[in-house]
Amino acid sequence: MRVRAWNFETRAPHDVRGLQGLLASGAVRAEDVRCVLGKTEGNGGRNDFTRDLAMGAYEALLAPRLGCAPEAVQDRVVFSFSGGTEGVVTPHAVVIAQEGDSLATPRAEKRLAVAVGYTREFAPSEIGRMPQVLETARVVRELVASLRVDGPGDVHLVQMKGAIPSYTHAEGEAAAAAGAPLRSDMVYSRGASALGVALALGEVSAEALSDAVICRDWSLYSGVASCSAKPGLRRTEVLVFANSRYATGDLVIAHGVLQDIVDAEGVRAVARDAGLDVARLGHDATERARIVGAFAKSEADPRGTVRGRRHTMLTDDDIGDTRYSRCVLASVIASVLGDTRVYVSTRAEHHGPLGGGPLALIVRAEDSQ
Amino acid sequence: MRVRAWNFETRAPHDVRGLQGLLASGAVRAEDVRCVLGKTEGNGGRNDFTRDLAMGAYEALLAPRLGCAPEAVQDRVVFSFSGGTEGVVTPHAVVIAQEGDSLATPRAEKRLAVAVGYTREFAPSEIGRMPQVLETARVVRELVASLRVDGPGDVHLVQMKGAIPSYTHAEGEAAAAAGAPLRSDMVYSRGASALGVALALGEVSAEALSDAVICRDWSLYSGVASCSAKPGLRRTEVLVFANSRYATGDLVIAHGVLQDIVDAEGVRAVARDAGLDVARLGHDATERARIVGAFAKSEADPRGTVRGRRHTMLTDDDIGDTRYSRCVLASVIASVLGDTRVYVSTRAEHHGPLGGGPLALIVRAEDSQ
Amino acid sequence: MRVRAWNFETRAPHDVRGLQGLLASGAVRAEDVRCVLGKTEGNGGRNDFTRDLAMGAYEALLAPRLGCAPEAVQDRVVFSFSGGTEGVVTPHAVVIAQEGDSLATPRAEKRLAVAVGYTREFAPSEIGRMPQVLETARVVRELVASLRVDGPGDVHLVQMKGAIPSYTHAEGEAAAAAGAPLRSDMVYSRGASALGVALALGEVSAEALSDAVICRDWSLYSGVASCSAKPGLRRTEVLVFANSRYATGDLVIAHGVLQDIVDAEGVRAVARDAGLDVARLGHDATERARIVGAFAKSEADPRGTVRGRRHTMLTDDDIGDTRYSRCVLASVIASVLGDTRVYVSTRAEHHGPLGGGPLALIVRAEDSQ
Amino acid sequence: MRVRAWNFETRAPHDVRGLQGLLASGAVRAEDVRCVLGKTEGNGGRNDFTRDLAMGAYEALLAPRLGCAPEAVQDRVVFSFSGGTEGVVTPHAVVIAQEGDSLATPRAEKRLAVAVGYTREFAPSEIGRMPQVLETARVVRELVASLRVDGPGDVHLVQMKGAIPSYTHAEGEAAAAAGAPLRSDMVYSRGASALGVALALGEVSAEALSDAVICRDWSLYSGVASCSAKPGLRRTEVLVFANSRYATGDLVIAHGVLQDIVDAEGVRAVARDAGLDVARLGHDATERARIVGAFAKSEADPRGTVRGRRHTMLTDDDIGDTRYSRCVLASVIASVLGDTRVYVSTRAEHHGPLGGGPLALIVRAEDSQ
Repeated sequence: MRVRAWNFETRAPHDVRGLQGLLASGAVRAEDVRCVLGKTEGNGGRNDFTRDLAMGAYEALLAPRLGCAPEAVQDRVVFSFSGGTEGVVTPHAVVIAQEGDSLATPRAEKRLAVAVGYTREFAPSEIGRMPQVLETARVVRELVASLRVDGPGDVHLVQMKGAIPSYTHAEGEAAAAAGAPLRSDMVYSRGASALGVALALGEVSAEALSDAVICRDWSLYSGVASCSAKPGLRRTEVLVFANSRYATGDLVIAHGVLQDIVDAEGVRAVARDAGLDVARLGHDATERARIVGAFAKSEADPRGTVRGRRHTMLTDDDIGDTRYSRCVLASVIASVLGDTRVYVSTRAEHHGPLGGGPLALIVRAEDSQ
Repeated sequence: MRVRAWNFETRAPHDVRGLQGLLASGAVRAEDVRCVLGKTEGNGGRNDFTRDLAMGAYEALLAPRLGCAPEAVQDRVVFSFSGGTEGVVTPHAVVIAQEGDSLATPRAEKRLAVAVGYTREFAPSEIGRMPQVLETARVVRELVASLRVDGPGDVHLVQMKGAIPSYTHAEGEAAAAAGAPLRSDMVYSRGASALGVALALGEVSAEALSDAVICRDWSLYSGVASCSAKPGLRRTEVLVFANSRYATGDLVIAHGVLQDIVDAEGVRAVARDAGLDVARLGHDATERARIVGAFAKSEADPRGTVRGRRHTMLTDDDIGDTRYSRCVLASVIASVLGDTRVYVSTRAEHHGPLGGGPLALIVRAEDSQ
Repeated sequence: MRVRAWNFETRAPHDVRGLQGLLASGAVRAEDVRCVLGKTEGNGGRNDFTRDLAMGAYEALLAPRLGCAPEAVQDRVVFSFSGGTEGVVTPHAVVIAQEGDSLATPRAEKRLAVAVGYTREFAPSEIGRMPQVLETARVVRELVASLRVDGPGDVHLVQMKGAIPSYTHAEGEAAAAAGAPLRSDMVYSRGASALGVALALGEVSAEALSDAVICRDWSLYSGVASCSAKPGLRRTEVLVFANSRYATGDLVIAHGVLQDIVDAEGVRAVARDAGLDVARLGHDATERARIVGAFAKSEADPRGTVRGRRHTMLTDDDIGDTRYSRCVLASVIASVLGDTRVYVSTRAEHHGPLGGGPLALIVRAEDSQ
Repeated sequence: MRVRAWNFETRAPHDVRGLQGLLASGAVRAEDVRCVLGKTEGNGGRNDFTRDLAMGAYEALLAPRLGCAPEAVQDRVVFSFSGGTEGVVTPHAVVIAQEGDSLATPRAEKRLAVAVGYTREFAPSEIGRMPQVLETARVVRELVASLRVDGPGDVHLVQMKGAIPSYTHAEGEAAAAAGAPLRSDMVYSRGASALGVALALGEVSAEALSDAVICRDWSLYSGVASCSAKPGLRRTEVLVFANSRYATGDLVIAHGVLQDIVDAEGVRAVARDAGLDVARLGHDATERARIVGAFAKSEADPRGTVRGRRHTMLTDDDIGDTRYSRCVLASVIASVLGDTRVYVSTRAEHHGPLGGGPLALIVRAEDSQ
């Protein structure tokens, strides 16, 4: 199994020239494209149509090459477009391709391996409760096993699009009357997804989990989960990124948990773990060029403070806190990495500690240069 | 001469409890208050009334203690309130008091000294042209001399409120017809003010300056100027901050020029120059407590890129570039200092290189702890 | 009793020159100023400090003339500043003064009369529940009686600032555990205040009211209530505007209920009821000059449609629905009245039907010209 | 020649189900679709990608049916998508189809006729100057003639997408040095396009026009032009809507000039001219159903006042004036028509008087019901 990845700066959400060039030159085959993670210049909110625009462009590009209808491309390639390139963030798309199966025998060094899977379809009543946690954990465990890693410590990012099955007003009323109000919303779907990852990887014990702690006990969290949630989606899409001795290629991944959104030390620690020479990143374009992708989750600390001091992100009625928190964290990460192609998405329930969140870095291994 | 300074977190723009406490306890006398520099939670734009609210509250506080009318307080105390606490920035006010005259004999170590002055009143035709530059330089030189510094290298911040005299439509038309269109606006007033500082301190030579280069040749700049401009103001207010052997107290100031708005290395260099232990700032509250004030200028790079990659700050019609650039730079500075009380104001014509800007830090000297 | 009113266009939130002039010339005595209702150019949200700025300026103006401390002015004059002058709305302040007592004998024609009162202080548990409704109704009835109107049909506007007593986290948890979660928030305080008015004026019957219907059964509403709610306020301020035979002066008031935020016909009906010649308003400045104040409540219809067609106000993450709904309704009212000094505040729980709201007009009586 | 039109409410910018249904049922043939004018829920600014999303969806729909590549559809169908559905505006698309040629002999009654044309390609130096005006006028005259109208009074809307040819920095510098700075921008392209229409239709005399008056003398304007301008476009697209005796179908068009953005009387006059019963529109769905499309241009009056009173649209740094002015005018139009499917686009240089603008209505003729 060989994983390759490219980070393309884009001129607009529907700029797919990067992948188009790879396909045209034969450098990549459409059927090997596993996922595309991109930041588009929308507001990241309900009226952000840049994600649809990007997705449509990739579907139009890939459909004829995959021999399927545009709307069927999503079943073959995982798309994770996140709106909001606040501040210095450069709109970009990370394309990941994967060829071949796991190696028969392990190699000495580990390389990035990727696995894609799906949960079963969920009933609305399961979202934000233990059934979602357990099923998510089951899929994560299965995918991790397929990558033949040495242990859970080799898993560095679990990117998910969480299910939010629709329900009727009557179903909602009935559930509330029965004492179990539906939680089929973004907050709970993200929270339960993250806890599913935490359970699968041993970050949280099974005993600690119950319906009651979901989106309530913030001391429970995953340091590798990254979940967005999509209304109408009935099953959760799961992408596991890990380092494996059974993979080749020149990529490795590392991660860490940032304690808050100005945790530059935390960013530096992840960069070091990924094998980057942090002191050189600021001014050495060669070292910087080793970075393929940076993926993080941000949150305007709900307690209203950062490092013990008041912030105004939650009481600003002109600009939303999601835009601010992405801007802040992306600025901090870019200032350490020297690269503005940073993928920060927001809302981080059970993703790292309250006010903080996970950061994962994919880089080219030094010995591969 | 002894300079003291306090950095008060504020609950609202008109929260003056910090200074009120100092005055009530007798720790500070109203007549010693030299200036207040603060960040208020407005948008920093034309319809930002938080600055008026803050100013009014300080005037109401100080007027009875100074024995003057509220509107006369501004003639005795320099106020520099900057709207916009985007992202993690904590609304705060830095109060600076100064007692006594210059020492008779120099001390071994240098300490923060402050001088306040004013240019003569300008005609609209002088703004953004050499007369403004030269007069500003004259005042800066005079103030610097009064501080008895060893040399221009001891000057680390020149905070100004630049004149923008009003003019009638007819005056504007007449000037344009005469081939010298008026430049009495914010952009030119800030640019000429900064070049005045650069000239006074030898950062730019007199030969290099002419009307033609103002707001045109961005290679000319000051690394210590920080100017806002205020419509209707007829003379420029000038505040010089320097280290002097003729001052006592426990404060020192340092500065540096950031090359762009994610220049964390530049921030770290200034912190080191100020005598801070940068490695400890992130987690050591004692070291962090030595920081009294951080003052910087930000700009969304007008070339549309940061570190060679596209940014979208200038083409976003939902959120202004001034809000983004302040958010980005303040995040980076806060991530290095571990302190979110960062004063970043925006628009930086001839303040540092294009896309970059100056940063000054006031800290408690280590030996004074 | 004589009520007089002035509508002053303002240059900024703290522009009090209008009232200042009246006081200086002796046209009005400070002790006769009963209330000031104004629109200020803020965002109307949590970080809108223009209301504080306006209030502070009026307090500074009136305190010396009333011989009290600035913070005590609020006990003598009711201030109702509403932020948000979206679109064509002209920032303005309506000053209302009242002299003398009720006439001994009724006159043939009715004139505007005003009464001010306060509820008792509420416990947090009472807000949004029947105790708040009943106490509000009691005060409204009392004030209405004091004005000696012919009947409830003579009451055209009840402007309130609703109580929202603070409570501790523990109190909140205890109430929830006891099965009666606290409702001490803006939504419920406004809703219960409006129902209190509806009850007092016979718009809703006592039998129809219960804790369960508050903020739930939107078919129950008042057509004359206008309530904002203020966190921390322990009692509700109540201003009743009515036409009475026991009042003199040249002002009358009328009102109506708009069915939605583009109900121009409804606006025209209110204008006609107020005695205005609607056909002349658009182009006849004299007729238009009879208008002293227009007061309305707006709401982006929560069902997502207006006149059966989709609107996007509730799913726009760039601009809030409160800003849009004020802009829309104020535009429609201004287009009928020909006057852009329109006071529209937002959030209209139990104020008129869902998606609609009340409109009141104060005008100079025709025979008084 | 028969013109038909449909107004489809859309669920999202790329919702093309309306036209899709017509095509699928055979009600319309793809080759008869002449233009689509739509409002999409973006911000209408530089980072509004909803227009691209809409256009792409229509191209994907029509390309296979027209037997051409998606990018070639624009040469056959004129698209005019305008972003910004502020306030009550319902996102919608008006599809216009045209079949057959002009009738051989005139009928007694006039019906809507449409003609499409293009100017020659412009050099950057021609934009905003007389060559653009004259060439635009030439095309308009030609198209008007082709429609065989009784006179210019039968032309009610000239919808244009104005050319803005790109140029290099060097070309710009050269032109400025030669004393004729390039005007190849949106403001000038819209202004010259409108004056071209005014010239063609006799609204402005040839003698009154010169390079000097363009975007300077606002007393010169067209009451039927509606121009947006698109960077990179080298020729202007022109759509003429008129009533002709040589057309059949059940549609007619009318127009008028609004004096300002709250000119409800002006809107009512246009509705009456179009044959609508204005008094019934507010409550009579049948009368209202006769409206097919409302097209207007808005502008926040640059003098800072509306009806002599201050507005704050131009000094609000949170929300742009284009968003406000569209919201205001659309609200006023919707309040008269009772229909929220209103197409208001902004920026109206030489489109109606300063602060005002044209309004055109397409309705089903009464006798056609």
